[in-house]
Amino acid sequence: MIPRYARPEMMAIWDAQTRFRIWFEIEAHAADALAELGVIPAEAARTIWDKAGDAVFDVARIDAIEAETRHDVIAFLTHLAEIVGPEARFVHQGMTSSDVLDTCLAVQLSRASDLLIAGVDRVLAALATRAHEHKHSVRIGRSHGIHAEPTTFGVSLAGFHAEFQRARARLVAAKAEIATCAISGAVGTFAQIDPRVEAHVAAKMGLSVEPVSTQVIPRDRHAAFFCALAVVASSIERLATEIRHMQRTEVLEAEEYFSPGQKGSSAMPHKRNPVLTENLTGLARLVRSAAIPALENVALWHERDISHSSVERGIGPDATIHLDFALHRLAGVVEKLLIYPERMKANLDLLGGLHNSQRVLLALTQAGASREDAYKMVQANAMAVWSLPSPRPATALLDRLLADSQVSTLLSPDHIRTLFDDSHHFAQVDTIFARVFG
Amino acid sequence: MIPRYARPEMMAIWDAQTRFRIWFEIEAHAADALAELGVIPAEAARTIWDKAGDAVFDVARIDAIEAETRHDVIAFLTHLAEIVGPEARFVHQGMTSSDVLDTCLAVQLSRASDLLIAGVDRVLAALATRAHEHKHSVRIGRSHGIHAEPTTFGVSLAGFHAEFQRARARLVAAKAEIATCAISGAVGTFAQIDPRVEAHVAAKMGLSVEPVSTQVIPRDRHAAFFCALAVVASSIERLATEIRHMQRTEVLEAEEYFSPGQKGSSAMPHKRNPVLTENLTGLARLVRSAAIPALENVALWHERDISHSSVERGIGPDATIHLDFALHRLAGVVEKLLIYPERMKANLDLLGGLHNSQRVLLALTQAGASREDAYKMVQANAMAVWSLPSPRPATALLDRLLADSQVSTLLSPDHIRTLFDDSHHFAQVDTIFARVFG
Amino acid sequence: MIPRYARPEMMAIWDAQTRFRIWFEIEAHAADALAELGVIPAEAARTIWDKAGDAVFDVARIDAIEAETRHDVIAFLTHLAEIVGPEARFVHQGMTSSDVLDTCLAVQLSRASDLLIAGVDRVLAALATRAHEHKHSVRIGRSHGIHAEPTTFGVSLAGFHAEFQRARARLVAAKAEIATCAISGAVGTFAQIDPRVEAHVAAKMGLSVEPVSTQVIPRDRHAAFFCALAVVASSIERLATEIRHMQRTEVLEAEEYFSPGQKGSSAMPHKRNPVLTENLTGLARLVRSAAIPALENVALWHERDISHSSVERGIGPDATIHLDFALHRLAGVVEKLLIYPERMKANLDLLGGLHNSQRVLLALTQAGASREDAYKMVQANAMAVWSLPSPRPATALLDRLLADSQVSTLLSPDHIRTLFDDSHHFAQVDTIFARVFG
Amino acid sequence: MIPRYARPEMMAIWDAQTRFRIWFEIEAHAADALAELGVIPAEAARTIWDKAGDAVFDVARIDAIEAETRHDVIAFLTHLAEIVGPEARFVHQGMTSSDVLDTCLAVQLSRASDLLIAGVDRVLAALATRAHEHKHSVRIGRSHGIHAEPTTFGVSLAGFHAEFQRARARLVAAKAEIATCAISGAVGTFAQIDPRVEAHVAAKMGLSVEPVSTQVIPRDRHAAFFCALAVVASSIERLATEIRHMQRTEVLEAEEYFSPGQKGSSAMPHKRNPVLTENLTGLARLVRSAAIPALENVALWHERDISHSSVERGIGPDATIHLDFALHRLAGVVEKLLIYPERMKANLDLLGGLHNSQRVLLALTQAGASREDAYKMVQANAMAVWSLPSPRPATALLDRLLADSQVSTLLSPDHIRTLFDDSHHFAQVDTIFARVFG
Repeated sequence: MIPRYARPEMMAIWDAQTRFRIWFEIEAHAADALAELGVIPAEAARTIWDKAGDAVFDVARIDAIEAETRHDVIAFLTHLAEIVGPEARFVHQGMTSSDVLDTCLAVQLSRASDLLIAGVDRVLAALATRAHEHKHSVRIGRSHGIHAEPTTFGVSLAGFHAEFQRARARLVAAKAEIATCAISGAVGTFAQIDPRVEAHVAAKMGLSVEPVSTQVIPRDRHAAFFCALAVVASSIERLATEIRHMQRTEVLEAEEYFSPGQKGSSAMPHKRNPVLTENLTGLARLVRSAAIPALENVALWHERDISHSSVERGIGPDATIHLDFALHRLAGVVEKLLIYPERMKANLDLLGGLHNSQRVLLALTQAGASREDAYKMVQANAMAVWSLPSPRPATALLDRLLADSQVSTLLSPDHIRTLFDDSHHFAQVDTIFARVFG
Repeated sequence: MIPRYARPEMMAIWDAQTRFRIWFEIEAHAADALAELGVIPAEAARTIWDKAGDAVFDVARIDAIEAETRHDVIAFLTHLAEIVGPEARFVHQGMTSSDVLDTCLAVQLSRASDLLIAGVDRVLAALATRAHEHKHSVRIGRSHGIHAEPTTFGVSLAGFHAEFQRARARLVAAKAEIATCAISGAVGTFAQIDPRVEAHVAAKMGLSVEPVSTQVIPRDRHAAFFCALAVVASSIERLATEIRHMQRTEVLEAEEYFSPGQKGSSAMPHKRNPVLTENLTGLARLVRSAAIPALENVALWHERDISHSSVERGIGPDATIHLDFALHRLAGVVEKLLIYPERMKANLDLLGGLHNSQRVLLALTQAGASREDAYKMVQANAMAVWSLPSPRPATALLDRLLADSQVSTLLSPDHIRTLFDDSHHFAQVDTIFARVFG
Repeated sequence: MIPRYARPEMMAIWDAQTRFRIWFEIEAHAADALAELGVIPAEAARTIWDKAGDAVFDVARIDAIEAETRHDVIAFLTHLAEIVGPEARFVHQGMTSSDVLDTCLAVQLSRASDLLIAGVDRVLAALATRAHEHKHSVRIGRSHGIHAEPTTFGVSLAGFHAEFQRARARLVAAKAEIATCAISGAVGTFAQIDPRVEAHVAAKMGLSVEPVSTQVIPRDRHAAFFCALAVVASSIERLATEIRHMQRTEVLEAEEYFSPGQKGSSAMPHKRNPVLTENLTGLARLVRSAAIPALENVALWHERDISHSSVERGIGPDATIHLDFALHRLAGVVEKLLIYPERMKANLDLLGGLHNSQRVLLALTQAGASREDAYKMVQANAMAVWSLPSPRPATALLDRLLADSQVSTLLSPDHIRTLFDDSHHFAQVDTIFARVFG
Repeated sequence: MIPRYARPEMMAIWDAQTRFRIWFEIEAHAADALAELGVIPAEAARTIWDKAGDAVFDVARIDAIEAETRHDVIAFLTHLAEIVGPEARFVHQGMTSSDVLDTCLAVQLSRASDLLIAGVDRVLAALATRAHEHKHSVRIGRSHGIHAEPTTFGVSLAGFHAEFQRARARLVAAKAEIATCAISGAVGTFAQIDPRVEAHVAAKMGLSVEPVSTQVIPRDRHAAFFCALAVVASSIERLATEIRHMQRTEVLEAEEYFSPGQKGSSAMPHKRNPVLTENLTGLARLVRSAAIPALENVALWHERDISHSSVERGIGPDATIHLDFALHRLAGVVEKLLIYPERMKANLDLLGGLHNSQRVLLALTQAGASREDAYKMVQANAMAVWSLPSPRPATALLDRLLADSQVSTLLSPDHIRTLFDDSHHFAQVDTIFARVFG
């Protein structure tokens, strides 16, 4: 985990004190249920809460015990016994370490999901605002990096909004995948513990019950979770890449906010670089890199082996913390993005009207030309316009078509001129916005 | 794509003729909608269906045209024009290649999803049958590869059943992710084509409408799809690994069916190897390897670049074909698995009753010992039993405990004996089955 | 494997006939060595060569036998016995299938390496030619996509040349990693076969001897091999990305060759897209995707399991075929790349001389300003130039500096003017070329 | 980075103070070279060393400056100027941040490589010791997890030794890949800095000169580095997996050392689990996960973008620290591994002599049977032995063969008996050891 790409809210989920607190709650709730079932004395359950309910656990002490026992849950239980006293022997009755560890991880990942969803919501809000602001900011659409046909920047942002709506849905589903509780004992048979304990703890911790655990909660759930994060990270990368492209010196249709006092380069004082979106591109790679180890974690041996544990100690915090940070960084970039509609307009005209080539093609076919012939007519004129130096006159293609005898036999000059009315391209902007924003 | 790991049903989805047939249907349905809207003549739309509705497309001819135009959709349209005649100029009006390509891919992946779901259903059926057959086949649960406590093989299979129920749900969700239709033109603005055409084609092809396409359907959908396949593949790997472990010579609780005439090794005539499940392990790696390139495909430039195309030409068929094959191979393995309950019983006893150590621990705490002290008492006796040569006498731990003066002060001999009644471990088998099978 | 991204030379390495031919040679050479050692009759060894030395193997027949035996090597040996007759019983004496399979794979990967190295050599030749052609074609260097300082396109290509020199060295090393022969029997102990057989076969097949095989050649070698391919693929992606950026409409400093008859879009006749380099970007993702499954193949169980086999049936051909194709496609792109030095010059001037900001900064510090103060002076002027509409006057920064009273106190007008002499930037071009081309 | 899987020596390489120290040395050595060239005053260079040569940098102060400038190197230089005074304006003359950052990373990765190589050396030493100890500890070789033919545990360890020799060579090569120095200015043209400065700094920092840097050292080098680490991690996983298999309750041929006071399970006091090797399996997944983002880092835009930076802030420390830890953990496991030759012997006999099936097969072919017929004869008897309950009588196969009339016509009873002399399997153990240990 890289501290500079971390927000305190998400880091707090993963710190030792939080973990021990969740462990305690699982044990204490289980004790309540065990007391209710008469397996342990009711006073014991009460004592556990009374003595340790507000405790700050001594992380260093727990670490010291673990150094001897080489077992983290036993170390915690030993420390808890120091706090609770003799009744501590009724803690963890019939449970196994994974009951605590896996249920705790479910709680942590659930909370992390909530933060991630809130992060997506901030991105969605920013995208919605800027999309409406620039609903009619015309800019050239580009396929293959080459000018294609016009669109508006609002439409582009609406598309990203739709993508982040999907991101949100994926995170909601991912949370459901991992928000399960297992208190099923050493091999998942409830041999020493009643399934009602599991139901009680699940309800208290905001989880559903894992239908079949072995000793552990099955890791296909976690694999699905980290894959969902990887997809969201990739969507971040797509938006970051869009902005990086827009900020290229030759394009410059938008720029990341550059704060007073900021310096773009140690060597070149003139630099203003899209460093935040480049950073997001890198963070996307990092978050994605959790997917494969999570998938490799699925095939644990028999009722479980512990190979997944070190992986999750890494990717659990890292992927959630960096994705959380990335979402907020992205939201900030979008919120403060400097957008230059006049540059969009200037870029649109660079190609001398080539962006209407399809409209001419279609008009020619409608006028009776075969698709093949129409294509050749337009392509020949278009290639001639390409060969002009940039920026080309805005009417370069129009002028050539008007002078083309083959074209003239099929289309009148007035008809040709109407094909270069750009407003045609924006007729469905409202439709698209309605699809996205309702 | 490796032909030996492919079923014809899935391969058919990806062959050239199927692809051209889907392309044709998209174009012909679009023509119907365009005719309905009055954009093209109704006769033209009819002629397209009449002339080419039953055509077998000439793949070699299309390839030859593509060699010149370097564009696959144009090559197809040119060939289609050869079949349809002059009305062909009304085909593809206002559409762009990706409208055809991406909608076709959506159809192919949808159909592939259906086959995959059917494959999972076969696995589920096989697991259900064998789980009920072996609901009470006692075997030792193993954590870390080391004997833990008893379970039944039916419970293990029920756990896999629950996992493949999740696999099914993931595939259903994955299908929904990619089953969208885009007929939105060169940059997704519907500049030359009415959105009602898209709605019509979507309905006819069994897809929903893509809310915002750029030129392409956004690739976060496909990334989510291939990640879902990767998770399913990992679940296959887990079950395959379980069977491989069970077949180890020293364990031998189950064996893949070994057919008459089969040979296990070119060198060693005695060999019977779990080659099918090992193969599934490898196939899982292959299917998983599609996840990263699918994720890398998300961040296309601007309205699209075509870098995703070669990736999808590879992983589209490969991941679906191999996962489909793997599901059926897995189902076959489970259906025919040779299961040896008597060996399960023999293995259970190898450790001289150590699998009841927890029960003794709990009884001691219930009898007043601290968890720490109880642990030490049981561990000391258990370690002594470990040090006996294998197989240990079935009552090795019981005998030692009965002779342990510290234990005796807390537990009566009869009480100790009841702790070694294994039936206790299976009290919740019905509960677990009810959770899984309803 | 995607046929459209495959060259026949590389495909031939992976076809069934080639594989059986290599299997035969391994067996026949082994028989020679066994005869020399007196283990089998000399006539037997001769007969094997005489009867099958020129045989075309009947792939369908071998497949049919495998359908029964479920073992590919046994199927081949059975077919070979049909050709060779009774002496066939002396074939494969003391060998195990992996001796044949793994040594064959080593031969195939070695041959594939040779083709890949030849592909890199073609790329190197193309880069060298174009680098020298454009050694002095000035263009702006860009960091973060933003103009930085000038360089020449030749220098850029020289950098890629250096990278592909490393690619070549990696492939040479990768070949050495996998070019080993194992003829060591069922568990690598040479229990039934003399190590001298292995030495003989290795020498004949152009391989070195594997120091310790288990039943198989250890898979860390193959993992290293596929990782090397992944790195080379990533270098291809970097060069492809460079060209895609250069071809962007707003930049247009270079273009992929666009052939007569080529069509860029089914919808928009004006399009000329960098489809080859976009395709290379995708192919790079595909080749890279072999790395993880190859790494997952390393930890085979004990003396071997066969999980690696299906993986290698996929990634073996796929990664080598697609990388081979990609190298030749890349070489073709570089060889025919349309390069526009005048556009490079035009782009260089877009920022009104900001690319000399560092030179002014350094001159100010040399003249006594602190780095901090100098930075602020230059940055203030640079930001003012940024705010001008593009394209900015070529002397925009120079003019402002000449008018800046703070700057004037430290630098004379003439001194300032010399800082805008671009030739300074190219003083070390020869040095760089000498480093790369010797 | 997970602190519990980290050794202080490796962590120290990555702490802030070390990084700033290396930055300082690069700047100070560069200043020496600049002074030698007359670019800056000799006193300035001396002052830099005098004032800051022994400085402990104030990390919090640097962080505070970075919070404003948003640039880490500028923040450091500003702090350095606070220490050095006015002469600080001669620091960083003509350099760019990446000159410092990338050269520093090269130093860090070089030092990390040295530690990793030392870790491999410890593993090699442990393997050599245990291999010689158990050179003649007979155990069954297993393919597919099924008994194959005998080998010795020493031979197995020798194979791992050979693999870690390759691991060592890969790390040496990986170090050479990344141990380069770039001091080439903003776009790698040495526009404001003489190449001799680079040569001087390289020599002082123990690096070679990067032939062509852009602004950065090309990232194919780092991709190759992290791929090499991934391969080494996979070799660790293979050895860890071997030990995990050996420790399985049913196999129990070896066990991780279990310390007094250690507890294997919070629930089951009898447990002794191979937790260290399971942990190594997980760590291998983590280290491997650095490979893909490192590969994705290669295709930076033009002269550089900064997307690689966040990735490397993660994987740089994480992959090196965890691999370093894993190597030492592995070495410790091997050094203290409890090895049970008597269990190896007992397991060998489980299959009633089936491990000599190949020897019988070969003898039959030598006696005139076709390979096909011989195979059938042995297979029939072998399958009958398989069907006996385990453990089978040690002479089960021998007895059946002696009683087989078909076999008897080809082989005498005495001949058959010699085929069951296991010593034959170990004839080449010395050869194998000589190959590995010289």
